[in-house]
Amino acid sequence: MADAIARLCDPAGDPTDSSIDLIVVGPASMARRLLLERGVDPDAVRIVDAGRGASMAGNPLSTLRAHDDVTVTVAVGLVSARLADGWVSVGHTGAAVAAAVLGLGRLAGMSRPALAVVVPSLAGPVVLVDAGAATDATPDVLRQFALAGWAYSTSLGVASPRVGLLTIGSEEGKGDRLRKSAHDLLAETLPAAGVRYVGPVEGHDVALGSLADVIVTDGFTGNVLLKGIEGAVRWSAHRMGQLYGDAEPARRIVRETATSEFAGGMLLGVNGVTVVGHGAGTADEICACVRLADKAARLGLVTATQRALAAVSTT
Amino acid sequence: MADAIARLCDPAGDPTDSSIDLIVVGPASMARRLLLERGVDPDAVRIVDAGRGASMAGNPLSTLRAHDDVTVTVAVGLVSARLADGWVSVGHTGAAVAAAVLGLGRLAGMSRPALAVVVPSLAGPVVLVDAGAATDATPDVLRQFALAGWAYSTSLGVASPRVGLLTIGSEEGKGDRLRKSAHDLLAETLPAAGVRYVGPVEGHDVALGSLADVIVTDGFTGNVLLKGIEGAVRWSAHRMGQLYGDAEPARRIVRETATSEFAGGMLLGVNGVTVVGHGAGTADEICACVRLADKAARLGLVTATQRALAAVSTT
Repeated sequence: MADAIARLCDPAGDPTDSSIDLIVVGPASMARRLLLERGVDPDAVRIVDAGRGASMAGNPLSTLRAHDDVTVTVAVGLVSARLADGWVSVGHTGAAVAAAVLGLGRLAGMSRPALAVVVPSLAGPVVLVDAGAATDATPDVLRQFALAGWAYSTSLGVASPRVGLLTIGSEEGKGDRLRKSAHDLLAETLPAAGVRYVGPVEGHDVALGSLADVIVTDGFTGNVLLKGIEGAVRWSAHRMGQLYGDAEPARRIVRETATSEFAGGMLLGVNGVTVVGHGAGTADEICACVRLADKAARLGLVTATQRALAAVSTT
Repeated sequence: MADAIARLCDPAGDPTDSSIDLIVVGPASMARRLLLERGVDPDAVRIVDAGRGASMAGNPLSTLRAHDDVTVTVAVGLVSARLADGWVSVGHTGAAVAAAVLGLGRLAGMSRPALAVVVPSLAGPVVLVDAGAATDATPDVLRQFALAGWAYSTSLGVASPRVGLLTIGSEEGKGDRLRKSAHDLLAETLPAAGVRYVGPVEGHDVALGSLADVIVTDGFTGNVLLKGIEGAVRWSAHRMGQLYGDAEPARRIVRETATSEFAGGMLLGVNGVTVVGHGAGTADEICACVRLADKAARLGLVTATQRALAAVSTT
């Protein structure tokens, strides 16, 4: 993470990030030392001191409630005080989601926030939502995810995003109980809100992208699928590197994908731009998360999501 | 399908299949015509007449109950009468599963059969179970799938298969409600049956394969994940073919994977070898399904599964 911060803070660093005004949140003495080690003048960087990280073990909510100096709480505080336009976490996902809900609040019409990931499919960007924030969803929660995902896709420039429900094909009887109920609800409510609902889509549609621009699922299935896709891409890169006799181009595709908008999950349904990245992310991946937060703030993602949720709440 | 049958019935066809004694089940006049068109003498092929296929639409169970001449019923009848050692379906998955349960019966200790797919991971074959037979599973159903998957992996030659439960990583709180209960049950019951339970694994572990030889999940998640992996491999082949400037080697990997043991799902927990392939499979893929059924029959898969289930039922 220190490498990513050093690069983002250094005017000679990543030129695509030169317009981003970064605030580093964390133990200040450690941040200053790490920046110095990387040849960046710490006095040229805005550092907001925070006493402790959220531990990966235990219940994040109890840590957040017991202490007011946890990094995620301090970072969220900057956004809610309008001192920052968004924030990025690459630590504990549960802690980031909890801090965002507590500090920024949920948008009206959104009972649980969702993580949306932009998959660079063969046919264009596909928004997969939810990628791991909310397991054990209900049909109504999936309806909210559909609207928020649609708003995200619209913000990213897709003119009239097609929304699909992730299931397992018509021949098996159209999925499990949750999907059967959710399909009926989506088919009934989304068109009334001006959202194009294209019905059931399958696992391969996430990477192929020809059927839908937004693919809706619960956080358990979405997280398993996303990690399955990542594993399959690494599998392919390994096998193809061997077969072509040159591993480098295959590795480049894995790297480029990991540092695209795919790098970070956008937390939809909270009142402020929140990006959650991989805890074990490379400097390039963390820079990509910061660029994604910057982009969402500029595109007015929160307002767009608010509007999409309101369009349905009032129908 | 006719191309696959022609090749399997032709002594000069696929040499790897020369030891397989094939029976073709379906409308006999159509089968004879298709074989003739492909230059194979239909009199040299055993054809068992069956009046109708199971339609892809509607409830397969009601079709099977209303008619006794459906292809899947006739094929299963050959296995239950010991006139065949196994059977392959490349039609309606639900119809194949229903016909197998009705005609062959479930093994003791298995309340619902599961589809197991062998994924050629970087570290070796990984059995993913269930890949789509049983949605809305319970912890006890996942326990049964774990035992049956373990027996399948053992039959395939893995000495002491490691069994993992597919979930979404410790940091998110170890999965949804089903996974939390299932983990406790698997940790308690599998070691007592002599089965190595390695705990939670994630989506990427299916293609990477370093943590577990058998990965257990419900049929909804398994089917979504499997199709997601297939889509990601096609995505990779497309992207890498472009980058390397030669699409053929990438296509070969997709083809080879599709015609490995990955081609067919093995239905575990019924009293007879049953392989379910893609409805839209190529001739190569259908031949691979037939080879898989042959292999499972020779390796005594049903007996191994029976034993694994009994080991636990009696503890």
